[in-house]
Amino acid sequence: MENIHKIRTADAQKKLKKEKIDAILISSLKEVFFVSGFHQDRTVLLLTQNQLYAFLPKMFVDHFKHTCPWGEIIIYENLYADIEKKIKDLKLKKTVFDSSLSYYDEAKKFEDMGIKRLNGFFKEFRMIKKGEEFENIKKSCEIAAKAFNIIKPKVKAGVKEIEIARELEYTMQKLGASARSFETIIAFGPNAALPHHETSEKKLKKNEVVLMDFGCVYKRYCSDITRTFFYGKPTEEFLKVYSIVDKAQKAGVKNAKEGVLTNEVDKICRDIISESGYGQYFTHGTGHGVGLEIHEEPYLNTRMSVKLSEGMTVTVEPGIYLFGKFGVRIEDTVYITKKEPIVLTK
Amino acid sequence: MENIHKIRTADAQKKLKKEKIDAILISSLKEVFFVSGFHQDRTVLLLTQNQLYAFLPKMFVDHFKHTCPWGEIIIYENLYADIEKKIKDLKLKKTVFDSSLSYYDEAKKFEDMGIKRLNGFFKEFRMIKKGEEFENIKKSCEIAAKAFNIIKPKVKAGVKEIEIARELEYTMQKLGASARSFETIIAFGPNAALPHHETSEKKLKKNEVVLMDFGCVYKRYCSDITRTFFYGKPTEEFLKVYSIVDKAQKAGVKNAKEGVLTNEVDKICRDIISESGYGQYFTHGTGHGVGLEIHEEPYLNTRMSVKLSEGMTVTVEPGIYLFGKFGVRIEDTVYITKKEPIVLTK
Repeated sequence: MENIHKIRTADAQKKLKKEKIDAILISSLKEVFFVSGFHQDRTVLLLTQNQLYAFLPKMFVDHFKHTCPWGEIIIYENLYADIEKKIKDLKLKKTVFDSSLSYYDEAKKFEDMGIKRLNGFFKEFRMIKKGEEFENIKKSCEIAAKAFNIIKPKVKAGVKEIEIARELEYTMQKLGASARSFETIIAFGPNAALPHHETSEKKLKKNEVVLMDFGCVYKRYCSDITRTFFYGKPTEEFLKVYSIVDKAQKAGVKNAKEGVLTNEVDKICRDIISESGYGQYFTHGTGHGVGLEIHEEPYLNTRMSVKLSEGMTVTVEPGIYLFGKFGVRIEDTVYITKKEPIVLTK
Repeated sequence: MENIHKIRTADAQKKLKKEKIDAILISSLKEVFFVSGFHQDRTVLLLTQNQLYAFLPKMFVDHFKHTCPWGEIIIYENLYADIEKKIKDLKLKKTVFDSSLSYYDEAKKFEDMGIKRLNGFFKEFRMIKKGEEFENIKKSCEIAAKAFNIIKPKVKAGVKEIEIARELEYTMQKLGASARSFETIIAFGPNAALPHHETSEKKLKKNEVVLMDFGCVYKRYCSDITRTFFYGKPTEEFLKVYSIVDKAQKAGVKNAKEGVLTNEVDKICRDIISESGYGQYFTHGTGHGVGLEIHEEPYLNTRMSVKLSEGMTVTVEPGIYLFGKFGVRIEDTVYITKKEPIVLTK
């Protein structure tokens, strides 16, 4: 199988030709990786229609050569001056950069050299997961789901949130993950009512809700999963809230298919929760894309209207949060197809 | 002990008054945390001379109240419009933001509302570690150093780099860390010659160099440590290179004290390595500040000239990298004082 980054380099060069752009300057870590497979700060790529140039500090040279042999290395002393010189030498007329991924001070320097803003050049490429990208996300999701099954029996009275987080992360790494994909959220009892609770020293008591929101990174690709359950004898209120969230989540997943808009999926989940009288307690969006970043496009919420396409991987994660009492969130990462999506986190 | 974030809020308000600035808009995650103790994306603070306002999505309200009771919450629908309205309502004339920490598109919006660029407002505060900040970094360093001692005996022929990384991270978490502070670098044999090697599946063989560069996060504060040793019977070349790096590192540490410039510390290390004939193989700077971020100011390299002051925590980490053979790097995180620094990673 050909190197996915080399394929992405070629794809992007085709797009440059098609859009009559001489070159794109790439300085965000994730997009440097996307194109070159090289994952280090302080690396800037200049992708022209025919060549990939990499501006590197000296210390990265051997490493880059090994990772991206199709790139041409320029060791920089003064990064911005060296970029400007190269653009001049190559007589590039229209060079662009993505200002939404650039810090202001850097963007200003690029603009001063006559480089134009053009946002989202890689957006479509990144939303549609191909080949080993899909395989990596799938594996990442499988690891997370498997880790949940291994750790769930350890969730017992007296255990601390932070201990469960640690065991989950260690288990995911044992299963092949390189890291967690975000700060693991383990929330017991009333803590589960905080959608972004910071995992604490709190110990689990009998008859409390347990909410676990976590994921891992496998070959740089992320997964995201949330499971909620009751430790002990569930209250009627919990059972009621859980069944509403579950119904909303299943409906969201079922309808997440090619051609449906992201805000339509959000509405399907939200309507079910609202009709049950809990609308005001569903305080966040329904989901987000998952890939090189744990939160990326497309977003599934009330405001964003992006048409789902085969190859996208997104989360569906409605929730109900009753402050001071408990919260319920159920989340899967799914792979969009023309029919029902493939649930990856199972 | 009073909440450190509340102290930082007050410190910053004093600085606003002194510099005759009506308010500062804070949108970077680390500085939002620095001032409020609240650590979530999509949160923007407006700190005036008398009040701290927090613009939050609805879902964060209860959480923020709990974390930062001295802040006043503004739930936003449209973040930028709501900020603009507040600035107008409060009749703030001079409001600033840090463009070096802002993405271009956001910075443009701030500028369009008449907010001025002012970089490094929190730089001095952040460089000098106070009270529990110092305690957290110290603890973070102790955990990392202790984990090395626990894991070193497990570094044996046949073990994979990635396995050692995982065991180190798990051990640090068991010792109280919430996470690693950066991607753990475990490099065997020739991999040690890549300063930013990506930990791989490579198995250790008898008579190979082992380089371990890692750290953890304890209560949001980072540590950074590197240890290099020979597994088996060391070659003469290794012993020679190791002793040069060790000498350079010890000299760097000894001289890192209040009043010395960061590039002077770099020069002390670099001269020792150069005089031994290995100058060209020391391909990076000598160190960096460590705090809320794993790399932060001040930087110790040939270009940056910042006077060291009591309360700074920096790394001293010279190295020699012989491509295709091996590398040696020795690194400690130290706390600057008026005399010799306190080595925290031991």
